[in-house]
Amino acid sequence: MSYGYQGGELGLFSGQKFLALRTLVAKDEAPTYVYDLDDIVNRTERLKAAFNQQVTVHYAMKANHNLAVLKTLAQVGIGVDVVSGGEIDLALRVGFPPSRIVFSGVGKTRREIQLALQHKICQINVESPGELRRIGEVARAQKTVAPVALRFNPDVNPETHPYIRTGFRENKFGMDASFFPEVQTVLGQFKDCLKLVGITLHIGSQLRDVSPLLEAVRKSIPWFQRWQEAGHQLSTFDVGGGLGIDYHSGNSEGELRAVEAYARGLLELLKPVGGRILCEPGRILVARAGVLLCQVQYLKETPYKRFAIVNTGMHHLLRPALYEAYHRILPLRESSGAEVKTYDVVGPICESADVLGHDRPFAGLQEGDWLAVMDSGAYGAVMSSHYNLQAPPREVAIRSGEVIS
Amino acid sequence: MSYGYQGGELGLFSGQKFLALRTLVAKDEAPTYVYDLDDIVNRTERLKAAFNQQVTVHYAMKANHNLAVLKTLAQVGIGVDVVSGGEIDLALRVGFPPSRIVFSGVGKTRREIQLALQHKICQINVESPGELRRIGEVARAQKTVAPVALRFNPDVNPETHPYIRTGFRENKFGMDASFFPEVQTVLGQFKDCLKLVGITLHIGSQLRDVSPLLEAVRKSIPWFQRWQEAGHQLSTFDVGGGLGIDYHSGNSEGELRAVEAYARGLLELLKPVGGRILCEPGRILVARAGVLLCQVQYLKETPYKRFAIVNTGMHHLLRPALYEAYHRILPLRESSGAEVKTYDVVGPICESADVLGHDRPFAGLQEGDWLAVMDSGAYGAVMSSHYNLQAPPREVAIRSGEVIS
Repeated sequence: MSYGYQGGELGLFSGQKFLALRTLVAKDEAPTYVYDLDDIVNRTERLKAAFNQQVTVHYAMKANHNLAVLKTLAQVGIGVDVVSGGEIDLALRVGFPPSRIVFSGVGKTRREIQLALQHKICQINVESPGELRRIGEVARAQKTVAPVALRFNPDVNPETHPYIRTGFRENKFGMDASFFPEVQTVLGQFKDCLKLVGITLHIGSQLRDVSPLLEAVRKSIPWFQRWQEAGHQLSTFDVGGGLGIDYHSGNSEGELRAVEAYARGLLELLKPVGGRILCEPGRILVARAGVLLCQVQYLKETPYKRFAIVNTGMHHLLRPALYEAYHRILPLRESSGAEVKTYDVVGPICESADVLGHDRPFAGLQEGDWLAVMDSGAYGAVMSSHYNLQAPPREVAIRSGEVIS
Repeated sequence: MSYGYQGGELGLFSGQKFLALRTLVAKDEAPTYVYDLDDIVNRTERLKAAFNQQVTVHYAMKANHNLAVLKTLAQVGIGVDVVSGGEIDLALRVGFPPSRIVFSGVGKTRREIQLALQHKICQINVESPGELRRIGEVARAQKTVAPVALRFNPDVNPETHPYIRTGFRENKFGMDASFFPEVQTVLGQFKDCLKLVGITLHIGSQLRDVSPLLEAVRKSIPWFQRWQEAGHQLSTFDVGGGLGIDYHSGNSEGELRAVEAYARGLLELLKPVGGRILCEPGRILVARAGVLLCQVQYLKETPYKRFAIVNTGMHHLLRPALYEAYHRILPLRESSGAEVKTYDVVGPICESADVLGHDRPFAGLQEGDWLAVMDSGAYGAVMSSHYNLQAPPREVAIRSGEVIS
């Protein structure tokens, strides 16, 4: 149990304490992301337990790059999956050892590859023959050997928003079997400076059903074996991330059981294959840990709709506008007995996209009240912008009942 | 003529010079927004001419808040429409006098209203009775009189993307006639510190057909007259912005002729009403002036699609992902004679949303080539984020053939 009500107040059960969220609001009433670091640690431990120590876990930094969150994850001893030079720099700065950094992404620039090789990170996930060639060139120039894994596109079409579906054949990601000859040629040309260490895949994000995830792994096994048969000593099968959470409910047991089912399926599927299994979860580790606190500025009732206009919006949390994503929105103080009315919870940005939630019921909601946009620890602050020249959101992290940043 | 080809090179006709865009690329090969300040000045002058000096033009800063762009517009002598405390601060900093600043937006905080009144800006556009009350309270506390205009929601449903449609009755913006009694009560309560100076409306953005714009103005006239009849000396009829551009063509004559038709219709409609007409264009002044330069990192051909992976994406230009917006994408160097192939132009961000253009034809496109995403001067850099910890875009402004920032 992380966030919940006590005596009508929404708060964080942290360590032995209950921390009312309203006490975390700053004097200037700025919208604030709160991160529960204990929840992140607990989930990481639960994931590691589900994987029975047989799977190496790398956190996908793109979900949340708050410093306190990253330092916590680095201290737990897991690795990190990065997707830019900026993320490589930050991973090193917060204490991830290079041996636990994997570099993914379709558009790696020459400079980013130079940075990755210079710091001797453990693996570069390769998305195209052109990228493989560039990595070979950079490695040769740096007189080093680049450890690479080939991203396979298994052509699995999971049920998720099209924008975060990445393992379908029409997506820009990975390579299918038709790439084999060209990749083999490039590997041959750079024999001295490219070391094929494994394969990798990632079919999308926010997947609630684990069967497409397992299906993708199953379809990738022949790709792994084909490279082994071609004489490469593959040590790693990187299954990517993608595990989703139930944004419609505060109960996370279902999603954690799904993780366990996934782990069992994965270990069974990959037992005969051998090699180290690497997994790159992002959202499942941090989404539940974050809430975005905001204050109702105005209540507005038209003949057609009621609006609660708050001081945060798409500039701080883009998911509802971009993916039509759902987040629960809860009042920091429960109002019992008052009449329940439904509101569109909207932000200050000058466009109609700026809606955090449609038709949400609140009892006795008033101007000045504070709300929490739940489960916003993943793909929240990292996608924030300065649109309308709004200030960035404040971020606060809690550990064992104490505000630590 | 602003951007065009000369001798196979895409460049900027600026002053007497032709500036090849490739010469504006920095050594570090960072993606770069280029802004043609002359084009912004020319368009502002053309708008002012169309309005025949009878309409006061205020630039909507939310479209682009680049310093050089803002300074240019301040020097041309037009006003500015701002939507946050951050925008008020910046407007003052770049030289807009307070008498030419209008403050719009649905979610004004108490601090933002304090700032606006403290600097004695010329008009606050009010979106709800709650906001009017708050402005009254702040003005009373500051012992000043707040000049306010009431935003009318005319319930016009223009043909544009739902996200940028704002004058439809189901949107959060403005007030319809049913608000009259409540607003009148608040005005009565704050007689000493609220001065009703006018009405305002804004039905949406990127409108290509001017008839809904004029229809909205026509429907707002009774709202204006009703407040006059109620004893208020209204001096301003603020018609908002909304004028769109043709993103599918480099020829902007059609959109400028639409502006002229709009101006004629507006002057005719509002002649019997009297008062100062205020107009708040954003996109039409700056969209054409901007291009986003990016470099092809990898060409990737799958059995299903060809991809050109570039070093910019949704983190620099969100419009294609958020609104499914179309931008022309042109090569900086024309390749004549080479075979034409179509590519999805995609960015480095780890999600399938990160597409700048689908199925775009290019002749002889190669890795390392540079492309220009056209017409990206509005709602481009202002919506950029640090997603995937990518660096922000570089911005360069050109005036009379010289790089000025």
